[in-house]
Amino acid sequence: MTDSSNVAYQGAPGAFSEDAAIAMCGEDMPRTAAATFGDAFDAVAWSRVRFGVVPIENTLAGSVHAVYDLLGSRDVRIVCETTLRVSHVLAGAPGATLERLRRVRSHPMALAQCERFFRARPEIELALASNTAGAVADVVALGREDEGAIGSKRAAQRYGAAILASDLEDDTENFTRFLLLGRQGEPPFPSPGPWKTSVMFTLAHRAGTLARALEVFADRGIDLAKIESRPIRGRPFEYSFYVDVIGMKQPMEEALHALGEIAASICFGTYCRR
Amino acid sequence: MTDSSNVAYQGAPGAFSEDAAIAMCGEDMPRTAAATFGDAFDAVAWSRVRFGVVPIENTLAGSVHAVYDLLGSRDVRIVCETTLRVSHVLAGAPGATLERLRRVRSHPMALAQCERFFRARPEIELALASNTAGAVADVVALGREDEGAIGSKRAAQRYGAAILASDLEDDTENFTRFLLLGRQGEPPFPSPGPWKTSVMFTLAHRAGTLARALEVFADRGIDLAKIESRPIRGRPFEYSFYVDVIGMKQPMEEALHALGEIAASICFGTYCRR
Repeated sequence: MTDSSNVAYQGAPGAFSEDAAIAMCGEDMPRTAAATFGDAFDAVAWSRVRFGVVPIENTLAGSVHAVYDLLGSRDVRIVCETTLRVSHVLAGAPGATLERLRRVRSHPMALAQCERFFRARPEIELALASNTAGAVADVVALGREDEGAIGSKRAAQRYGAAILASDLEDDTENFTRFLLLGRQGEPPFPSPGPWKTSVMFTLAHRAGTLARALEVFADRGIDLAKIESRPIRGRPFEYSFYVDVIGMKQPMEEALHALGEIAASICFGTYCRR
Repeated sequence: MTDSSNVAYQGAPGAFSEDAAIAMCGEDMPRTAAATFGDAFDAVAWSRVRFGVVPIENTLAGSVHAVYDLLGSRDVRIVCETTLRVSHVLAGAPGATLERLRRVRSHPMALAQCERFFRARPEIELALASNTAGAVADVVALGREDEGAIGSKRAAQRYGAAILASDLEDDTENFTRFLLLGRQGEPPFPSPGPWKTSVMFTLAHRAGTLARALEVFADRGIDLAKIESRPIRGRPFEYSFYVDVIGMKQPMEEALHALGEIAASICFGTYCRR
């Protein structure tokens, strides 16, 4: 991880985050895997790579709070975002069959998304892996016909696994939104459409402060795409808010300035959507 | 599950939800375990038990979206809420030691909350169980000295497990909020303090509608305790909002009436805190 034109994605080669890296940076930018969310942030902050890719929310599981926490504490900015449909296959070593499987490993989130499939197959034991693509690589390396893994079709193809079943997820409306991170000073990618701005701010806990804070956007015709509150650790009765808004440059700058007057603290980043 | 004075909690005996059931209904009300969130809701809706207990959010993992979805689709109401500190122990069969452990099973959320502990012990493989208390019961029944489980201290004591390590969670600010569900018509428990009201509503996607919706509370001095937006499946550009507000009966009724005039749909419940 020393090439500063690289992009680091969280997971192993074949991970869904690698698909997101390709969607945002193209096929040609060299890619490197980072073991944890923190590693992906640090690789960017410490200039070992140019960009980092991390998931920020999933339609079924909600926000990835650990990534929000890192966004608030590391010196990086959001450059771009993309949303991918997440579909799982059941991968086995060549020669494995669905009937013989007794153990399936994957990331806990992936296993949870395929609950219905496994509830109908109580003979299969579930085991945890730190990422989906690594689980697929492991079962191929292991070569046992009773072991399988849940991962992407691309991971199965990459590691030469047999695909024993497809579209395992309970809910087909399974989308994950990924962020592309760059260093401070990295300009957002050129955008064909309106920009998106993510704002994290804190407010003193008084009735009506959030309504007042949101009026700075409403008054300027700026669209709200997401809102979420979270208690601040160790500071009871104070909240931080995650807000995503969509709008043009000039009214957005005015709105953020106005919000800065109301909020106890504020940080924000503007980026394009791919 | 035929006694209508019972309380059903999601999980197995010794689960954190059973602690929540005790906190809200007392030690004396007969308790029964429900395998899934949906089972706990159905046991209430179909009058097989009087109350149900489910988790609604955790400080580290965020909202339990599956429970919000059930709240919106099943004919039950929230009667009470309580918040518990979640602390994990490592349980083994009598005779097991931390040094000999090679495999630890638990609910994926519990394993994720103890990530640091296991990162330092790569020789331990992690396996999934559908709930923490059941995992503890299983390792005791299995009786192997190299198998362990993560669960509550109470679960370890209940099943006669050896406690091999305590306070395993990465973050001590680990709290889970639980709801007590009752049938429609079940009055909220008597409340010593102000009532809490959970509101789920949808708005047409127009700039400023959420700010207007929140003003109905702000204008009446009603406090916001939580807010979260979620895209509505199959209806792009429409959102549902989860809002918790704290306030007195009269202004709250006025605010909910005013919100009803703005929202495309609305449902709410008022309950006490224990």
